[in-house]
Amino acid sequence: MNVEISQSESEANPAGCGPIRPESEAIGSSLRHRVFDSVRSAGQISRIDLAKQLRVSPASITALVGELLDLGLLRESSDTTRMSTRGRPPVALSVQPDAGYVVGIKLARAQHTALLVDAAGRPLAQASLACAQRRRSLAQTLEETGQVLDALLKEAGLARADIACIGLGMPGMIDHATGQMVWSPLLTERDRPLRQLAEDAFGVPVAVDNDANLVTLAELWFGKGRAMADFAVVTIEQGVGMGLVINHRLYRGAGSLGMELGHTKVQMDGALCQCGQRGCLEAYIADYALVREASTALDPSHVDVAAPDVMLQQLYEQAKAGNEAARVIFRRAGRFLALGLANVVNLFDPPLIILSGERMQYDYLYADDVLREMHALALNRDAAPQKVETHAWGDLMWAHGAAALALSEIADAMAEGRG
Amino acid sequence: MNVEISQSESEANPAGCGPIRPESEAIGSSLRHRVFDSVRSAGQISRIDLAKQLRVSPASITALVGELLDLGLLRESSDTTRMSTRGRPPVALSVQPDAGYVVGIKLARAQHTALLVDAAGRPLAQASLACAQRRRSLAQTLEETGQVLDALLKEAGLARADIACIGLGMPGMIDHATGQMVWSPLLTERDRPLRQLAEDAFGVPVAVDNDANLVTLAELWFGKGRAMADFAVVTIEQGVGMGLVINHRLYRGAGSLGMELGHTKVQMDGALCQCGQRGCLEAYIADYALVREASTALDPSHVDVAAPDVMLQQLYEQAKAGNEAARVIFRRAGRFLALGLANVVNLFDPPLIILSGERMQYDYLYADDVLREMHALALNRDAAPQKVETHAWGDLMWAHGAAALALSEIADAMAEGRG
Repeated sequence: MNVEISQSESEANPAGCGPIRPESEAIGSSLRHRVFDSVRSAGQISRIDLAKQLRVSPASITALVGELLDLGLLRESSDTTRMSTRGRPPVALSVQPDAGYVVGIKLARAQHTALLVDAAGRPLAQASLACAQRRRSLAQTLEETGQVLDALLKEAGLARADIACIGLGMPGMIDHATGQMVWSPLLTERDRPLRQLAEDAFGVPVAVDNDANLVTLAELWFGKGRAMADFAVVTIEQGVGMGLVINHRLYRGAGSLGMELGHTKVQMDGALCQCGQRGCLEAYIADYALVREASTALDPSHVDVAAPDVMLQQLYEQAKAGNEAARVIFRRAGRFLALGLANVVNLFDPPLIILSGERMQYDYLYADDVLREMHALALNRDAAPQKVETHAWGDLMWAHGAAALALSEIADAMAEGRG
Repeated sequence: MNVEISQSESEANPAGCGPIRPESEAIGSSLRHRVFDSVRSAGQISRIDLAKQLRVSPASITALVGELLDLGLLRESSDTTRMSTRGRPPVALSVQPDAGYVVGIKLARAQHTALLVDAAGRPLAQASLACAQRRRSLAQTLEETGQVLDALLKEAGLARADIACIGLGMPGMIDHATGQMVWSPLLTERDRPLRQLAEDAFGVPVAVDNDANLVTLAELWFGKGRAMADFAVVTIEQGVGMGLVINHRLYRGAGSLGMELGHTKVQMDGALCQCGQRGCLEAYIADYALVREASTALDPSHVDVAAPDVMLQQLYEQAKAGNEAARVIFRRAGRFLALGLANVVNLFDPPLIILSGERMQYDYLYADDVLREMHALALNRDAAPQKVETHAWGDLMWAHGAAALALSEIADAMAEGRG
């Protein structure tokens, strides 16, 4: 199978002119998606249960499932979850696992991580590459991406031609629909056709996305999201990201550049953000926001803003040891996190918020008083406090999400009849 | 037809215990919805075009349309938009207009407005009731609602029994799914079962919603939304509200208490909001936020905070006449509006934002520099400025939206098989 994902744009944009903005990146843009997603999240389900769940007639489900079977997206198997009393096990539907290998790659400041999975999402091999912690050109970044990809393929004994799709994620504004990298804290350039350049470099179909969406896809395909229709993910790393799942699908905004929670403004003319604007939420929470105040709390001769991970660790240890300035720095970050989470509650009313990212190891950010403040700032204070969980997954989980991105890209392409 | 909408909860919440929180209020929770919405937004469409639009096979569409025809939600008619060359006009689908009368009622501070429409949404009669501009009990409010309802029915020569459903909207946190009024600036009480009490009072099925959602439904059913899959509405009246349409459906958040843009925090420990919290967006934009600073700009002996409409008009005239303090009040409101709109762009990336509500008559709020600031605060500044339109509809448009709420409630109940 070799899905030409790059061809999908001409379908999504029949007019064929101007920047590609599909009418709706939204949930259930195809009825087939809806049926496929229900089977995927159930794992294994019968036609009759599917009809009940989607509240349509058996005749309608039979027709829709028939399309997905013909496309090779679903397969029939014996339903092992329920044995018929008559002896013959009923037929169940599940996702077709023989759709090839995909690779998920998470690009980050200090390290790139790659994961090879089969079509059912099972990890087969992994690789990572340490790199210089500074902004660099897109060309160099793609060079590094190629290195980690080849290391992964060597490990697995595969060639690039064996890969059906690469899911590639990085922090910043990455437009999934058009494949454009609008802005990223990793890169020196702005506005480059990331997907196209990556496909040219690797000769494999590529899907790109914001890294917060990778974590969300990982939760949706392999984590909490298998059982939950709606949830939000907030990530805290080099920046603050957000992912939103509505009715079992990732929602990226009407175009696909939404959910930029980290850049919503929480203070008029406030703190300077790495995006160049003032008052963004992440300018009060992300690691660089904490590190730039470190010189006030730490011995200035030991402050090295070029080594944020080291600085943040020092700051954290100082706070733990009772350094008041260090405590105040974390305290304000915690209050702004509470404010940001309350805004998520006021806007999306999600039954669950998952906090993720390596910064969640700092328990100042995820403390009981942060959750109390979040609840106090939510409009509907009479309701029970929102459920908040911390999943401080490492880079491998993000790479797994990138693999889910590649898998969903293949499924979407096939469901849309572009496969 | 007499749809028992109040029975729907037991279906949405099969467990039948605890506060009713359907798994998903989201878009396309039923495939039938998706098909019905496509026909409604198209007005008239053939099966083959519907299959193309929804990217499914003709067999699947035939099955799904068959269900909607059986339910009496759609009807077949001659397709007047395209004549067959063979002489016989092809068959088109459209929404069944013979589904009874519905009433939309908008409750507001100074006046309640009611509108009677047929099932196709065509206005047949209207009525309004002026009332005291102060918070009052829910009992008194329902009394007033009954008065305006009866005035409307008298005008139309109908009885309450002729009404299939009443759509009732008011400002505040109104939980459409559960029918609960959590909080409203109109009322002295909190947390009352609004829908149940209204149904008991009027003997007619009632659907309730936040008033910003009414405007959004009005745009969706009768305005811009017939042609657009995704858009956002921001309303500025006694408070600041928001409505979001995703893929032709109103999105209310995962529960149905989301989209509270007016109560997202834009300043830590900021200005006092009518909800009792600090730093809410509406505490910088809504009429009460402007009026409470009026005593600084106007002759204090003329200031009457109990007459906000009068005060706001005076303030506006003073600003126009060059009163610097009055200008500064509007200027800050405009800057915060820009900030709030930029947050909407950063989160939802909508192709269109519609500004609505009576305060939009103050051109300080909708000035070119507000839009410039909004664009400057949007993360994706390289993109073309977001499209923003002002629709300063009056109360009748909101009541029309309330009627759309009642119509969509009937359609949803029937599509879910509860009709």
